[in-house]
Amino acid sequence: MKSFTKELWFNTGKKKEFINITSEIEKLLTKSGIQEGLCLVNAMHITSSVFVNDDEQGLHHDFDLWLEKLAPHEPVHSYRHNVGEDNADAHLKRQIMGREVVAAVTGGKLHFGPWEQIFYGEFDGMRRKRVLVKIIGE
Amino acid sequence: MKSFTKELWFNTGKKKEFINITSEIEKLLTKSGIQEGLCLVNAMHITSSVFVNDDEQGLHHDFDLWLEKLAPHEPVHSYRHNVGEDNADAHLKRQIMGREVVAAVTGGKLHFGPWEQIFYGEFDGMRRKRVLVKIIGE
Amino acid sequence: MKSFTKELWFNTGKKKEFINITSEIEKLLTKSGIQEGLCLVNAMHITSSVFVNDDEQGLHHDFDLWLEKLAPHEPVHSYRHNVGEDNADAHLKRQIMGREVVAAVTGGKLHFGPWEQIFYGEFDGMRRKRVLVKIIGE
Repeated sequence: MKSFTKELWFNTGKKKEFINITSEIEKLLTKSGIQEGLCLVNAMHITSSVFVNDDEQGLHHDFDLWLEKLAPHEPVHSYRHNVGEDNADAHLKRQIMGREVVAAVTGGKLHFGPWEQIFYGEFDGMRRKRVLVKIIGE
Repeated sequence: MKSFTKELWFNTGKKKEFINITSEIEKLLTKSGIQEGLCLVNAMHITSSVFVNDDEQGLHHDFDLWLEKLAPHEPVHSYRHNVGEDNADAHLKRQIMGREVVAAVTGGKLHFGPWEQIFYGEFDGMRRKRVLVKIIGE
Repeated sequence: MKSFTKELWFNTGKKKEFINITSEIEKLLTKSGIQEGLCLVNAMHITSSVFVNDDEQGLHHDFDLWLEKLAPHEPVHSYRHNVGEDNADAHLKRQIMGREVVAAVTGGKLHFGPWEQIFYGEFDGMRRKRVLVKIIGE
């Protein structure tokens, strides 16, 4: 069994942002030399997500409004977590969008459907944060 | 390390549907010959889900109403994604229900609790769509 | 390839509870002797969750209120599942919080960010329920 490990760093310009990381993951997969296996991609922080969805700007706008409705940032003091912090909503948003994606590796490629793209979802950004890529297989 | 890969096709009769795929996954697992490992089952489309929950009709009705409340289909034009499309809500519903399930394989069987069943959840159906099964182990 | 399997039992004192199981998972990982691989931790029941978030009491209180708002327990008879049962909301809450976590194993340790902790989330407790730990790797 082979394994491959890599941490990716992000520092978003905005508090909330969606970044398509598919091509970066594909490059790491090629580098790993693994042909058949599983590829785990997860946020290493608890106020951000890794998820698979569509690379479409309108949809990302819809996600943003929807998450703000389900887990609003304001009023900040409605959250007991927000003592010296204001990111309780980011912890909640990340539960909706998920921590991780496990992708199949087949023939040395991400085995994806036609529209599947992997995103880093940031809900408390403008600081250095990490995503972990772990690939195992043969 | 062994690996096994199979794509399953679905074409639901309704826009929204939950289909129990547990016995189909179990058959593939037997066919793989893998005794100990991990079994990934994921939707290959971004408007459908794979999830584990109860095979109970009342609950599925509750899921349907609940998802419609959290991520309503109407009004269609409230979503910026819906330009020439009307499935923005399906992209949102799938985030709640999840893209994938990773199940443990022990002694050649899905290592499940008494009520765990794997479902394909369709939120934008009536067309051909796929689920991927990837099993790795020994 | 090595594999390691263990079921953990829980019987919470309250209907709803969050329990930090990180150190227990770390002990099992050490026992497995696996250095590089993947560690699956999943609820074996469909009214509970395994998830990664912050070990902070205020946040757990926020999670509880938020889940009660998104998937309220009352009115019990608003759910079609609740015929001779009253736990439909627990099935819904578990979809928000997730069934499972897949963690990377690097150098014999859980490869986690600074605040990542694994929790068992109970939404229909006060009875014996299980979590499965499956580790594969080398």
